[in-house]
Amino acid sequence: MDCKTVKIGLVGLGTVGSGVAKIILQQANSIAAKTGIKLELACVVDTDTKSARPVELPNGILTDNINRLLNDKNISIGVELVGGTTIAKQIQLKMLQAGKDVVTANKALLAEYGSELYAAAKQNNRCIAFEASCAGGIPIVSAIRTGLAANNITAMYGIINGTCNYILSNMTSKNEDFAAALDKAQKLGFAEADPTLDINGGDSAHKLAILASIAFGYEIALEDIFVEGIENIAKEDIIYGGEMGYILKLLAIAQKEKDNKISLRVHPSFIAKDNSLAQVSGSFNAVSIFGNAVGQVTYYGRGAGMMPTASAVVADIIDIAIGNSAGTFSHLNLKPRAEVKPFIEESGNLVSRFYIRLMVKDQPGVFAQFSKILAQDEISISGALQHEGHGPNNTIPVVITTHPTEQSKVTAALEDLDKLDAICTKPVCIRIVDIPEDAD
Amino acid sequence: MDCKTVKIGLVGLGTVGSGVAKIILQQANSIAAKTGIKLELACVVDTDTKSARPVELPNGILTDNINRLLNDKNISIGVELVGGTTIAKQIQLKMLQAGKDVVTANKALLAEYGSELYAAAKQNNRCIAFEASCAGGIPIVSAIRTGLAANNITAMYGIINGTCNYILSNMTSKNEDFAAALDKAQKLGFAEADPTLDINGGDSAHKLAILASIAFGYEIALEDIFVEGIENIAKEDIIYGGEMGYILKLLAIAQKEKDNKISLRVHPSFIAKDNSLAQVSGSFNAVSIFGNAVGQVTYYGRGAGMMPTASAVVADIIDIAIGNSAGTFSHLNLKPRAEVKPFIEESGNLVSRFYIRLMVKDQPGVFAQFSKILAQDEISISGALQHEGHGPNNTIPVVITTHPTEQSKVTAALEDLDKLDAICTKPVCIRIVDIPEDAD
Repeated sequence: MDCKTVKIGLVGLGTVGSGVAKIILQQANSIAAKTGIKLELACVVDTDTKSARPVELPNGILTDNINRLLNDKNISIGVELVGGTTIAKQIQLKMLQAGKDVVTANKALLAEYGSELYAAAKQNNRCIAFEASCAGGIPIVSAIRTGLAANNITAMYGIINGTCNYILSNMTSKNEDFAAALDKAQKLGFAEADPTLDINGGDSAHKLAILASIAFGYEIALEDIFVEGIENIAKEDIIYGGEMGYILKLLAIAQKEKDNKISLRVHPSFIAKDNSLAQVSGSFNAVSIFGNAVGQVTYYGRGAGMMPTASAVVADIIDIAIGNSAGTFSHLNLKPRAEVKPFIEESGNLVSRFYIRLMVKDQPGVFAQFSKILAQDEISISGALQHEGHGPNNTIPVVITTHPTEQSKVTAALEDLDKLDAICTKPVCIRIVDIPEDAD
Repeated sequence: MDCKTVKIGLVGLGTVGSGVAKIILQQANSIAAKTGIKLELACVVDTDTKSARPVELPNGILTDNINRLLNDKNISIGVELVGGTTIAKQIQLKMLQAGKDVVTANKALLAEYGSELYAAAKQNNRCIAFEASCAGGIPIVSAIRTGLAANNITAMYGIINGTCNYILSNMTSKNEDFAAALDKAQKLGFAEADPTLDINGGDSAHKLAILASIAFGYEIALEDIFVEGIENIAKEDIIYGGEMGYILKLLAIAQKEKDNKISLRVHPSFIAKDNSLAQVSGSFNAVSIFGNAVGQVTYYGRGAGMMPTASAVVADIIDIAIGNSAGTFSHLNLKPRAEVKPFIEESGNLVSRFYIRLMVKDQPGVFAQFSKILAQDEISISGALQHEGHGPNNTIPVVITTHPTEQSKVTAALEDLDKLDAICTKPVCIRIVDIPEDAD
């Protein structure tokens, strides 16, 4: 087989960028042997051309001048690994206008400006490939777009933020509180110096927007997604939930509801301990997808990190070089926002089960008081847990779980509960997600 | 987006064929909305045109004359779901010669005649897509070929035969013996009337040949694969192995060994109970792949059945229609047999840990006798288990596990052990596979 050389321009020589350079420089021959495509790193652009990097570049290819990349007609693929939603957007647009296909890992940019960028790509007869934007090394984007293309996807449940999963895993297995677990994650490099976008659920929402858009063929906006982070999770709730058979995960969920509506949400979720996603620990990611033909399919792997993400970037480069991405991209058909909006379920209507913890005075009639409020709001109690207390001067936790209930009813009940004298602190409320599990 | 109509011809209206017809007939509009490709089932060929099927075909498209399909120039994709390696081969060749791209789920045919068929496809400037041939609904073929293309794949461990996994799961959880578990599997449709090719490991070997060839870029022949089935597994060994922390699975394994050699094998394997593949039960399939960049990636889902397999067939149809398969296929570059052979490790050189059960007389010196033989053959004992016996007239099981040892040494030791007077029945030997597990 003849070998075709494909020249790559890379913008952003940070962690992932260095990983991409490493793979291209070190694996070019084995990739060529398998695919007939010889990748050549022709130009690397970064504002910092001085610092040491974990990869040694060939002489003369590192520059701080992006025009060298844009004006080089032999570079057919541009990789944007700058991150952020401002400069990165301009870089992608310029690369498309310069006739280059674009590969990116930038979920924030695609979640916010995806439609605009996709349109620019189509206008320039180019494509954008973004496997690396979601769940790093797990080829989940291509699985949804091609492997499961014959399916009507009914639901998707994902652990797609490694930082949060690392923190929650440590809170669970080592009984650490949130601050200590976050601190450890930062020290070990599993959380960034500013972890806000990870722990507040924003990063998961970006990825969910991308995955849901390709799964359902809809333009999804961030405002369509209900988001709650893990910042306020107390280790007590992980313990009590554990006693009731649940483990806490930050889940990103996309689900077909009645009337063809889709619910999209990211929130801390108690899931059954024997569900396969419950076993996903540390910084790992996993996504379970349900299709009407295929049933359940679950993907597991590293969701972030230098080499796993670089692996996805280079997979996209190869896919473009082979000629596949152009086909896949040109057939990416997202229903425009105006048509999509009515099909997004409002968060108040979401039906879920709930875990509610109340800190109550250990005195007669308390259970009667709050169970009456729940009954008034038509919330049915599924389970309850109250460890024996030590008399009226003490505050004790009472945990109840509910049967499926609309969010709006629970919100109302929580407000009513908060007014009760016998309840000492703001009620804690965490959703319970009953992930279906295919079995024989 | 304009909709392009693609006409499909289907040969073989059995279980999977009916599933494919069902998806095309029922999901054509939603597939068109997502991809811009409108699939049309134009012709269905089967020798039996009378029997009732679980799908209602449009009038006039069912025929027993394959020429109707071959001569219809508007049919661009031919789906072969006949099975077997004789007629099916002729059908695929004729479809390719007639200018049609081919989609197939026929692992036996590809494992045996893949190179010949791939060559015929390239000669006719057509492609063969075979996602459905391995692990049904799990898009594992495309994951290896595209998603992990940037990786040097170092190992692959798969549970890829649903029948065997169903039988072993029942032997494990319900304490059934092999015959009873097989009988139940047949009654419930998880095993065929003639289950030979499933239980003797042949089916797993077919799939492993296909997966390993695309993972390593080698022409793999069935003779390259060491195969042992589950027909002789006794429930006692599942129990004793369980007591030592293992669960029994039929694994298909491809592994890079030293000197760049590859070992390929299918055999009953004890794996650690906390390994993620140990949780895969019933008829489900899972594959863990290790790449030098991505680390561990695990895929889980239904490996067989009407709709999951049909889902994979239709995914391939869409991939061809979009124009992707042509690119992927033309870049499929398998090193020819003549070059590959030296890189396949011989089974005698395989290094593994072993579980050995001996039925011995409960009398003095027995342990000394057989441990001396193991020592002579340089086999180091890792663990041992002997339940207390009831004196010299009884036969008791002694189980030992070994440290990593070459197969050839163990084979020699087993022969020597068999000659000992104190050992009453042929020693049982099952490999222990220490699947690596990525962790933070």
